[in-house]
Amino acid sequence: MSRLFLRTLREVPADAEVPSHQLLVRAGYIRRVAPGIYTWLPLGLKVLENVERIVREEMDAIGAQEVRFPALLPREPYEATGRWDDYGPNLFRLQDRKGGDYLLGPTHEEMFTLLVKDLYSSYKDLPLSLYQIQTKYRDEVRPRAGILRGREFVMKDSYSFDLDDAGLQASYDAHREAYVRIFDRLGLDYVIVKATAGAMGGSQSEEFLAVAANGEDEFVRSPGGYAANVEAVATATPEPIDFSDAPPAHAEATPDTPTIETLVDHLNEHFPRDDRAWTAADTLKNVLVVLRHPDGEREPLAIGVPGDREVDLRRLEAQVSPAEVEPFGEDDFTAYPDIIKGYIGPEALGADSVTGIRYLTDPRVVSGTRWVTGANVAGSHVIDLVAGRDFTADGTVEAADVRPGDPAPDGSGPLSLARGIEMGHIFQLGTKYADALGLQVLDENGKRATVTMGSYGIGVSRAVAAVIENAHDELGIVWPHELAPYDVHVVAAGKDAAINDAADRLVADLEAVGVSVLHDDRLSVSPGVKFKDAELLGMPTIVIVGKGLADGVVEVRNRATGEREDVPVDDVVARLS
Amino acid sequence: MSRLFLRTLREVPADAEVPSHQLLVRAGYIRRVAPGIYTWLPLGLKVLENVERIVREEMDAIGAQEVRFPALLPREPYEATGRWDDYGPNLFRLQDRKGGDYLLGPTHEEMFTLLVKDLYSSYKDLPLSLYQIQTKYRDEVRPRAGILRGREFVMKDSYSFDLDDAGLQASYDAHREAYVRIFDRLGLDYVIVKATAGAMGGSQSEEFLAVAANGEDEFVRSPGGYAANVEAVATATPEPIDFSDAPPAHAEATPDTPTIETLVDHLNEHFPRDDRAWTAADTLKNVLVVLRHPDGEREPLAIGVPGDREVDLRRLEAQVSPAEVEPFGEDDFTAYPDIIKGYIGPEALGADSVTGIRYLTDPRVVSGTRWVTGANVAGSHVIDLVAGRDFTADGTVEAADVRPGDPAPDGSGPLSLARGIEMGHIFQLGTKYADALGLQVLDENGKRATVTMGSYGIGVSRAVAAVIENAHDELGIVWPHELAPYDVHVVAAGKDAAINDAADRLVADLEAVGVSVLHDDRLSVSPGVKFKDAELLGMPTIVIVGKGLADGVVEVRNRATGEREDVPVDDVVARLS
Repeated sequence: MSRLFLRTLREVPADAEVPSHQLLVRAGYIRRVAPGIYTWLPLGLKVLENVERIVREEMDAIGAQEVRFPALLPREPYEATGRWDDYGPNLFRLQDRKGGDYLLGPTHEEMFTLLVKDLYSSYKDLPLSLYQIQTKYRDEVRPRAGILRGREFVMKDSYSFDLDDAGLQASYDAHREAYVRIFDRLGLDYVIVKATAGAMGGSQSEEFLAVAANGEDEFVRSPGGYAANVEAVATATPEPIDFSDAPPAHAEATPDTPTIETLVDHLNEHFPRDDRAWTAADTLKNVLVVLRHPDGEREPLAIGVPGDREVDLRRLEAQVSPAEVEPFGEDDFTAYPDIIKGYIGPEALGADSVTGIRYLTDPRVVSGTRWVTGANVAGSHVIDLVAGRDFTADGTVEAADVRPGDPAPDGSGPLSLARGIEMGHIFQLGTKYADALGLQVLDENGKRATVTMGSYGIGVSRAVAAVIENAHDELGIVWPHELAPYDVHVVAAGKDAAINDAADRLVADLEAVGVSVLHDDRLSVSPGVKFKDAELLGMPTIVIVGKGLADGVVEVRNRATGEREDVPVDDVVARLS
Repeated sequence: MSRLFLRTLREVPADAEVPSHQLLVRAGYIRRVAPGIYTWLPLGLKVLENVERIVREEMDAIGAQEVRFPALLPREPYEATGRWDDYGPNLFRLQDRKGGDYLLGPTHEEMFTLLVKDLYSSYKDLPLSLYQIQTKYRDEVRPRAGILRGREFVMKDSYSFDLDDAGLQASYDAHREAYVRIFDRLGLDYVIVKATAGAMGGSQSEEFLAVAANGEDEFVRSPGGYAANVEAVATATPEPIDFSDAPPAHAEATPDTPTIETLVDHLNEHFPRDDRAWTAADTLKNVLVVLRHPDGEREPLAIGVPGDREVDLRRLEAQVSPAEVEPFGEDDFTAYPDIIKGYIGPEALGADSVTGIRYLTDPRVVSGTRWVTGANVAGSHVIDLVAGRDFTADGTVEAADVRPGDPAPDGSGPLSLARGIEMGHIFQLGTKYADALGLQVLDENGKRATVTMGSYGIGVSRAVAAVIENAHDELGIVWPHELAPYDVHVVAAGKDAAINDAADRLVADLEAVGVSVLHDDRLSVSPGVKFKDAELLGMPTIVIVGKGLADGVVEVRNRATGEREDVPVDDVVARLS
């Protein structure tokens, strides 16, 4: 450490909110260059390389082959799949000296598809899995939390190529198992959740989330084992209800009831039910938004959800991606005079209605359900409006918020909510990219067949931070053994030549048997500062060569448990090797 | 090989001119994505990683510490040193979503300087050497020769930080020795030549060139050991000559002599010398160019060289960098009516002359030398114009071409010319970057001292190609042992189960003792095609398991020498391990 390029910091960096960011900067693992852009210092680089090694070993073990694509990519392939536009401002775009359009790759589906098309042409070449560990770029709106959400970051991305669905499923399963081994080895507390595909396209999709209180992703799980990203939670859909006995709908005066709360109060005061009080869940709230499509087109959209729920924008955005969701503004209300703010009802909504605004309802709005909802007249609501009899939406949408206690869609019990960090994402892309870029091979009968693909990502640099979110205490980082920059941190605690000589010998002996050692040999630093640094830096084992030497012992500390033990000097190497 | 992601090509790719480019594509090591931008396929990536490993080991051995900077960098530090402009169109520039200016790093002097400034503050922290192996970007005018001159490439760049010149020299020497070991291990035929610093700034500078007929760099060497990049060759400067006896200058009519050749003919016909014939070397040719400075300013410049030599634009550009050299055009002649095309003489040149055009002469134009040169009158030249008596230039410039047989400047004999590929470049930067960015430390006396720096690069991806330029034959690549993707290439030459079983066993046995093996186990490929592929791919040793098996032997071929030997099956592992 007398020569290591390192400065530990006692104070918490002003811009660092989450523990991993604070600790990585304080312990001298990373250093900021620009928002979301970091330099790896010597210790940090060792951890990053350890993550890379684990990922590489497990990808190799399932027969995936490593390649490395450039980060600077031409526009054309991304144009062909629509992602040049779909990525919007998240993509770093640039021009070369000749005016050619380029991008910094956010993920490489197009490039892998074209490479396989370039070199392979027969079913005999499949199945094939290729991967790379490579630097990627996304111009995040809000880079945050250090390397948890950066703009330049390291990812492992792999892609599988198969002739049919069964092959794709096998490749997907192999990747899933490799991911389980990788995240186990990383020592992460993680869950595998159902996910939406987002801008990637495709069908089956799961995320590996590191459970972390300050993770950006919210997910649900049930006692029976259902788990899903909040964006991907499917609503448990009730059975349709027979409405032959339902009373006819009737509009009623409900002055000054622009909100659900005022409406429910008004109903209970003026139109009390016999069986029970009205609740917000009896009302149908119609929310208007505008979708901005990648080509710039603005499309108004109405969403009907039970009045006791909110529209969750993340869930909505996941459904309508790559379109983005914007507010339905005053100008929009002006453009649609049939829409009466605060009293919007199904009659004025839907493709066939007077407004022509597409109308999607929550999956709970099944045929036969009865609702109180706007009458499209200021100060008036309709009661006993029956879905399937009095109105029919253009479809359903998973946009209502998910709440603790909601039933899991597979009947496995009530959902609980937690937060996590997205560490891995596996997709069945299907033929989306192969279709767009013409990746076909000749099948056994000599006919052209479109290749079906999977796409599998791991946030390699993000893992360094996610592990710390899972493994730290108030003193510093607590590295799992496979990730630690060094196995052992030896502290020479004292100025005596005897202590320093003994520490030197111990380090040499440990290294001779293959134990990697960080040696705090600094002469001008007090033992107290050295202990604090050792705890901050987080090697799994700390060995203190100090006063005990007079009795022939050194102290061995387990960084994770805090256990301390005096070990005879002569036994230390055997114990730690 | 039945599962390896590989397609070898028999035909030479249309766009590939040099052997390394042809072979890397034909042997399936790399694949083009865009001009100067390539993907590393599985075998190529292994070679690249072997180069990285060698470089890393030797850098670690001199105590340099590895870090990793981002490639996406903010403008400000490069603005502070002037390189944002100096790099001109060679820099990839882009803006982020907020309009912030960024660049893709071509080299990282600024970033390393700022990092050390950020973390270190005392002389006790020095000396320090940091390095990275990282992807870099340059928007080359003419990307060529595959990965020999790409636009995205891998470099090792390191930087030394010292308190004084002696420290810098020691760091420089340590890097130089590490480079010698690296290039020795890469198996390159290389020379170390004096170099100019170019856009990097700084003083002492040497290049490591791989000797190669189609290298882009031209260099000279002498029997006595002088070696320099052509741009950096210092002209052997003659002693001044006493001109007290020299005849006065006299202008003479020389109609229709716009070229040196016509002038010499005219002189010999109309003004014959007593002692010998006039030659082109007796004339002083004045060439006009325009320098375009990074800020856009155009500055005319006159260069006087002996008439038997040309102005070498590369040498001139190296002298005037970061300015670029443009032609002195018709508009420029119009702007300077005192300049008479074809008859330009020193009288109209120089800062104090009627034109005010800066005038630099070749170092051979020493005081007392006599010249025939333009009289600034159409159809007239001056004879016996004596340097130092009749004219004095504003300075000298190393712009004349260098020729085989020219004397080395250190008296070590006549120069010969050869071509090479720049593989490494080491610079003493001095305080250029530390001054620009304020990198100071407190010295032993508590005073602020500016840190002095060195900068040291190696073209890591380029090395993969350069080694092939040195090591290939008409059949394919011939990898040196340390770079080969695999140690041994086993060919199962035949369809018999016995042959394939024996090959499988041999592969397993070799791998068990740590020999890495590429196993050509393809069943549908003929032995002839397998042999051709093995020779193309270039592993150092090829083992053929074929007909000889009946006699208990396999054939072991040395790819480099072509030697073939039958070796008993039972001895092969011992022989190759």
